Amino acid sequence: MSPAPFSELLGPLFGSVEASALFSDGARLQGMLDFEAALARAEAQTGVIPASAAPAIGSQCRAELFDMAELARATARAGNPAIPMVARLTALVAVEDPDAARYVHWGATSQDAMDTGLVLQLRGFLAVLGADLGRLAAALARLAETHKATPLVGRTWLQHALPVTVGLKAAGWLDAIERHRARLFEVGGRALALQFGGAAGTLAALGERGIEVAEALAREMGLALPALPWHAHRDRVAEIGTALGLLVGSLGKIARDLSLLMQTDVAEAFEPGGEGRGGSSTMPHKRNPVTAAVVLAAATRAPGLVATLLSAMVQEHERGLGGWHAEWETLPALCTLGAGALRHMAETIEGLELDPTRMRANLEATHGQILAEAVTMALGSRIGRLEAHQLVERACRQAAAARRHLREVLAEDPVASTHLSSADLDRLFEPLNYLGSAAAFVDRVLASRRAD
Amino acid sequence: MSPAPFSELLGPLFGSVEASALFSDGARLQGMLDFEAALARAEAQTGVIPASAAPAIGSQCRAELFDMAELARATARAGNPAIPMVARLTALVAVEDPDAARYVHWGATSQDAMDTGLVLQLRGFLAVLGADLGRLAAALARLAETHKATPLVGRTWLQHALPVTVGLKAAGWLDAIERHRARLFEVGGRALALQFGGAAGTLAALGERGIEVAEALAREMGLALPALPWHAHRDRVAEIGTALGLLVGSLGKIARDLSLLMQTDVAEAFEPGGEGRGGSSTMPHKRNPVTAAVVLAAATRAPGLVATLLSAMVQEHERGLGGWHAEWETLPALCTLGAGALRHMAETIEGLELDPTRMRANLEATHGQILAEAVTMALGSRIGRLEAHQLVERACRQAAAARRHLREVLAEDPVASTHLSSADLDRLFEPLNYLGSAAAFVDRVLASRRAD
Amino acid sequence: MSPAPFSELLGPLFGSVEASALFSDGARLQGMLDFEAALARAEAQTGVIPASAAPAIGSQCRAELFDMAELARATARAGNPAIPMVARLTALVAVEDPDAARYVHWGATSQDAMDTGLVLQLRGFLAVLGADLGRLAAALARLAETHKATPLVGRTWLQHALPVTVGLKAAGWLDAIERHRARLFEVGGRALALQFGGAAGTLAALGERGIEVAEALAREMGLALPALPWHAHRDRVAEIGTALGLLVGSLGKIARDLSLLMQTDVAEAFEPGGEGRGGSSTMPHKRNPVTAAVVLAAATRAPGLVATLLSAMVQEHERGLGGWHAEWETLPALCTLGAGALRHMAETIEGLELDPTRMRANLEATHGQILAEAVTMALGSRIGRLEAHQLVERACRQAAAARRHLREVLAEDPVASTHLSSADLDRLFEPLNYLGSAAAFVDRVLASRRAD
Amino acid sequence: MSPAPFSELLGPLFGSVEASALFSDGARLQGMLDFEAALARAEAQTGVIPASAAPAIGSQCRAELFDMAELARATARAGNPAIPMVARLTALVAVEDPDAARYVHWGATSQDAMDTGLVLQLRGFLAVLGADLGRLAAALARLAETHKATPLVGRTWLQHALPVTVGLKAAGWLDAIERHRARLFEVGGRALALQFGGAAGTLAALGERGIEVAEALAREMGLALPALPWHAHRDRVAEIGTALGLLVGSLGKIARDLSLLMQTDVAEAFEPGGEGRGGSSTMPHKRNPVTAAVVLAAATRAPGLVATLLSAMVQEHERGLGGWHAEWETLPALCTLGAGALRHMAETIEGLELDPTRMRANLEATHGQILAEAVTMALGSRIGRLEAHQLVERACRQAAAARRHLREVLAEDPVASTHLSSADLDRLFEPLNYLGSAAAFVDRVLASRRAD
Repeated sequence: MSPAPFSELLGPLFGSVEASALFSDGARLQGMLDFEAALARAEAQTGVIPASAAPAIGSQCRAELFDMAELARATARAGNPAIPMVARLTALVAVEDPDAARYVHWGATSQDAMDTGLVLQLRGFLAVLGADLGRLAAALARLAETHKATPLVGRTWLQHALPVTVGLKAAGWLDAIERHRARLFEVGGRALALQFGGAAGTLAALGERGIEVAEALAREMGLALPALPWHAHRDRVAEIGTALGLLVGSLGKIARDLSLLMQTDVAEAFEPGGEGRGGSSTMPHKRNPVTAAVVLAAATRAPGLVATLLSAMVQEHERGLGGWHAEWETLPALCTLGAGALRHMAETIEGLELDPTRMRANLEATHGQILAEAVTMALGSRIGRLEAHQLVERACRQAAAARRHLREVLAEDPVASTHLSSADLDRLFEPLNYLGSAAAFVDRVLASRRAD
Repeated sequence: MSPAPFSELLGPLFGSVEASALFSDGARLQGMLDFEAALARAEAQTGVIPASAAPAIGSQCRAELFDMAELARATARAGNPAIPMVARLTALVAVEDPDAARYVHWGATSQDAMDTGLVLQLRGFLAVLGADLGRLAAALARLAETHKATPLVGRTWLQHALPVTVGLKAAGWLDAIERHRARLFEVGGRALALQFGGAAGTLAALGERGIEVAEALAREMGLALPALPWHAHRDRVAEIGTALGLLVGSLGKIARDLSLLMQTDVAEAFEPGGEGRGGSSTMPHKRNPVTAAVVLAAATRAPGLVATLLSAMVQEHERGLGGWHAEWETLPALCTLGAGALRHMAETIEGLELDPTRMRANLEATHGQILAEAVTMALGSRIGRLEAHQLVERACRQAAAARRHLREVLAEDPVASTHLSSADLDRLFEPLNYLGSAAAFVDRVLASRRAD
Repeated sequence: MSPAPFSELLGPLFGSVEASALFSDGARLQGMLDFEAALARAEAQTGVIPASAAPAIGSQCRAELFDMAELARATARAGNPAIPMVARLTALVAVEDPDAARYVHWGATSQDAMDTGLVLQLRGFLAVLGADLGRLAAALARLAETHKATPLVGRTWLQHALPVTVGLKAAGWLDAIERHRARLFEVGGRALALQFGGAAGTLAALGERGIEVAEALAREMGLALPALPWHAHRDRVAEIGTALGLLVGSLGKIARDLSLLMQTDVAEAFEPGGEGRGGSSTMPHKRNPVTAAVVLAAATRAPGLVATLLSAMVQEHERGLGGWHAEWETLPALCTLGAGALRHMAETIEGLELDPTRMRANLEATHGQILAEAVTMALGSRIGRLEAHQLVERACRQAAAARRHLREVLAEDPVASTHLSSADLDRLFEPLNYLGSAAAFVDRVLASRRAD
Repeated sequence: MSPAPFSELLGPLFGSVEASALFSDGARLQGMLDFEAALARAEAQTGVIPASAAPAIGSQCRAELFDMAELARATARAGNPAIPMVARLTALVAVEDPDAARYVHWGATSQDAMDTGLVLQLRGFLAVLGADLGRLAAALARLAETHKATPLVGRTWLQHALPVTVGLKAAGWLDAIERHRARLFEVGGRALALQFGGAAGTLAALGERGIEVAEALAREMGLALPALPWHAHRDRVAEIGTALGLLVGSLGKIARDLSLLMQTDVAEAFEPGGEGRGGSSTMPHKRNPVTAAVVLAAATRAPGLVATLLSAMVQEHERGLGGWHAEWETLPALCTLGAGALRHMAETIEGLELDPTRMRANLEATHGQILAEAVTMALGSRIGRLEAHQLVERACRQAAAARRHLREVLAEDPVASTHLSSADLDRLFEPLNYLGSAAAFVDRVLASRRAD
């Protein structure tokens, strides 16, 4: 039974399997135990504890030896899960080697175990995320390349504006995703740092040996050794949150675009179908956009979770009260939401179905008005821009009132028809001829993107 | 195994057992099934479906008949858990009564089941919350009554200001809690409403019988029948969230006060102790304020969750895309956080340990300066307020510089000692004599509070 | 010159003129001065200060006598604007009546003036808001009434679902607005309360006379006298924020709906036009939905501002540090945003242009599939529901593949044509015949709404 | 008169003068005009418009030629300020050179002007911020260096834990600030990019010349040329917001620490005083911590503003509706808040007053218990760790009960006194002897910090 509002039932919908596993209770516990085992090894190496203690401790650092429900109850009393974890670990070690049991958690504080454990979880998470970002980027790059010249309506303020291309749209999405990859790389470099400071961040219990042990411990765990402990300085973990918030924002933008293209009224794109996917029990004609729903939900939720992490940064003195606790569920929630949204999006872009015919038809929906600017520019070079603007504006009004195509109205206009031949009008009303630098922009994005 | 970042491990620390149970996966599923059973009964009563179908359907509406992991996988494809729930329920009914199976979920949409199920969960939740609010209010009232005349330092901007009383502090907390009780009563009246509209909110599949069935269904479930379905109008559920956000804010204020009073440097109050509670493995003298940590964490998290619910209100047309989904984990998370914080606080206030001796000693920490205003007022009535202010200000500076008590300096001052006798000074430097309307305010709060 | 990022330039776009005036610097200052004047009157009435002091003080309580830039500089040093305001007011009074100057701000603290001043601003604001809510509700009621039978596509998950009516849509919007009116009424009853407690909330400087003066003061200002001062209990003001957050959420929902209906691809509704409204310099055919943009922007901004107010509730002891300060710009910002969004929406609904012809055409966009459920229900009563469902689903697929109307495919189907005559099919494919309880729902909303 | 809730009155308190000036209405307008002037130059250089048009246009691109109130009214109709700005600029140019007027804003869209104008404002802002970050870092480095060996109580969960040093505290603050400097450097590299895409991001109106003009324009403005326009991809600007949110979080942490050290009950640190700074009208002994209030207020407000920017990222298609608008006041608000908090903090750290004597006294507040861990470690090496722990724990309880110093109790203990001489106890109860790696950590931070 799941004891919390967060749920076995909704996990597969909103999260990704890998990320959820990385942030399970078991993984949280194992992260702390990995810290304890590595600490014992580092202290044995440096001669701070007996050499025999390290394997004796390490052999018990396995999450499956712990009773989660019992730990949970003790956590509610102690205020954090590391305190009962250390007590239980000590008892386990004592069964085999009472002497070694005295060196469990030597010189560390509970937050050292919890924070370093979290950093280990985050290291795994960033690897999963990086792989899925690469997958999404590759799919977007293929889309941009394939549809570099596929025209569709460009929409601004939700109104038809000018023709653009599918390739340009995809390149815009891709370009943002590439920036997120760069950000997450930078963030990882700062965040994946050992936490080790003892009760008040001085490593006092280790006397003169603190830095030496810390260096050995960082080496053991493959983590950076920060200049000093960061118990109450939470920018490292909050920045993971802000980077995810930014990523989810961009995923939400893509999902919003897709959801609008998938409207029955627009029908230019479709999520990949599949068994049981997006069906409706009562309306057989419907295919619901599940990815769009999931990603938009994530984009609705992430900002509040990021705000929580930022609020939680205001922590007191050497180790804070409440702020730290506020992170414990918030950051994992944000990580799994982000990973789930990314996975959904990668799969959807890989299987995205497009309808270029409908795109073309929708370009005609305004009966040529979407190319009014093109005509104005062409005419302007002959009769002056102001005159051209007034002429075209008038023609637009006439065409709309009479529900006629703008081309027809212009063809009948004495001035316009003098300066623009039928062939000119044909050329001007072809969307492919008014795409400006769209293809060049696609090329720039593809050329600049990070090598995988 | 818990599949999500939200956790068996931390549940008992942050949540309350009752609230967590109300928002478990099982309870969510049962809420939907209760809707389906009641719908069948209502439709049988009104003759919309055969009378025999209702018990056949109702008998299968038990969460334990469903495989949660399977539902979870199907949910990830379908986009919501009601769709596979209905499919599975239909299959279960069909085994026993194929004819009845045709009437499962008759005329309803998946959101009808999910929203009404949620409302049932919220009804149970509001009852639990109400009970704990009553418990906290009662404990605060006892505290206010008992310590109506116990003086302690009043602190503004974290500086010693004037004497106040424990009773006044408790009455302030209580007064806020009483307002939250009133709010939650009002909110419940709006929120506990049936959701029943069918695919697009018209109940079209029921022809002319929609309202009649809806009335019967509301009666069956003991829920209010709203004027019309509210699939995409989420103010009802969002308001539960805002009311909780406000409540948690006040709980956070109390926790902040307690945490400050519990500082080793202040030591005027202590959370109730107990086996394993707030201990430190390395520092035997420490007792960590666990309730303060939990409640402050909730107060850090709630605002972001409330913001999510408000953002999610912007839903599209008849049923929205993403906004609704964003609620599914957010509202339960907020409910359990709020319930947990409230429960922790009620228990802590019931067992709160106070140190009136230390409070008294802290009133002396500024060597009388905390009563400078009292002296100024008394002296002002004799030598004029401006002169009095200047005299006392000078005396304050002298006392601080010489680390002497303000009373001594004043007693040596020729002007002050002329107008204020030693007995006057004794009276003026007694904190109990400068409490103004503190007791009257306590009485007003106790008199005005809601009868339980 | 405006010194801040918040701007003369954008004020008229995002705010309403009245609300902006109520929350100007001048109004903030005048609110505090109104407190000081009323305090003097109350204290004169109760004999706490000389009778002559009240008019002497009151005559100087005019914002225009103060130099805002000078106050601003002093505020930056003092930490709040009431301290320099009191100093300046005292100086002004002293010029005319040195004796009266001694009684300025007698027994009060700076927060008393600031909070009560804020409450006065809020009282004016709630009146403006209430009027605009009434105006919007009236416009929506007219819309619901007028278009009770105007059919349009009902859309769920942004897909065509079933026919609904403009009246039902409008009634849904209206029903939510009516709930907001009820909420704001309740909130106002709690929030419009006097703040008066002196330095630490005991009114100690007034000795035994505190409550008496407070009662007189509340009477003078027409405000409720709370059970005790609420300096550090901010639920009253935060609740104004949450109520606005909920309101703006519903306005955002309406704006989202309108923006989708106004898409060039849908073209069922239009914001009222007008000189310079929503034009584009380069694309003469565009009319940008300005109200939708403004209201959606407000709905994007409000949740974060509400979260700030909730976070700010965690205030320390008798008067807090930082939390209170966080409110000063946040609540007014939220109020003006909300008022602006409401005003825009009221004007837009009043002038909303609809295109029932296009609505009708869009109902045909799926070539009859939007009524597949209706056919299934009708056929089901004759050949059994399951068989009917399978038959219709198959016909839907055929129709989609062949781009034919579902009616045609069914007319050719041997089973369907046996049971459904041509007249039956005509009736079933008429959207007006599949609206269920839509009209009844509209009537329920209109009947239940608050009398203005 | 200031028309908005944001205010001349509070600007100097919450903001910095430089940042406020950078985000004034005038600066916003000038930013757009600088874009228009540079566009004209770039287009003249590339031969897209006549050479003479550039100076004719450029000469009118001065904010002081525009009537802000009139622009504001037109903005409310048009939906953004760039549209009326272009109209007014065109009119101004036309007076002097009607031909040049035809080339104003050639090929650009209003968002090009607004976004690039914003980027110019941000460039100035990042320079101001960088300077103040350097100033704060320098002050913190001096503090860390000077007080490397000044001991004070280390506090965890607001309880006395172990001795630490002022230097370690300052080094922790400094280390975080250095990370923020690195972040802002990275962010600036991404964010300071030209926006130039025309109506739908294709630069179609420039035909084949789009990229060429864009390159020239980027050169003219000293901005990076992005791979493609980013009208609806807002991660660049949102990231400025998240970086500020992180910075303000760390500033809030420092302010929280200071506010706690400045409590009357602790009295270890004080904000620099000064004329009118933090005074109280009624309580002459008080000095309110104004910087702490301002910075904590910023830390309360920033998370909500960041959340808004993240929510606003979900923008539609080629240019969004509402999301973009939500940024216009939010990002400037966040920038000025952040700059104000930083400036306040830099000034306060530069003038921070410390009381090492009181720090020393507070180390004695627990009568030696703060060094219980030190004694346990020393004793443990002689009698075994477990025995030592039990002995010391018992002694702690005795000392607390009898209100005696732990050293005295231990000196009387037969076992302890056998193994620890009086000299040993002297050494063990000297806080300076139990600082572990504190000094080494300070050195590491000072060595690793960015060269200014």
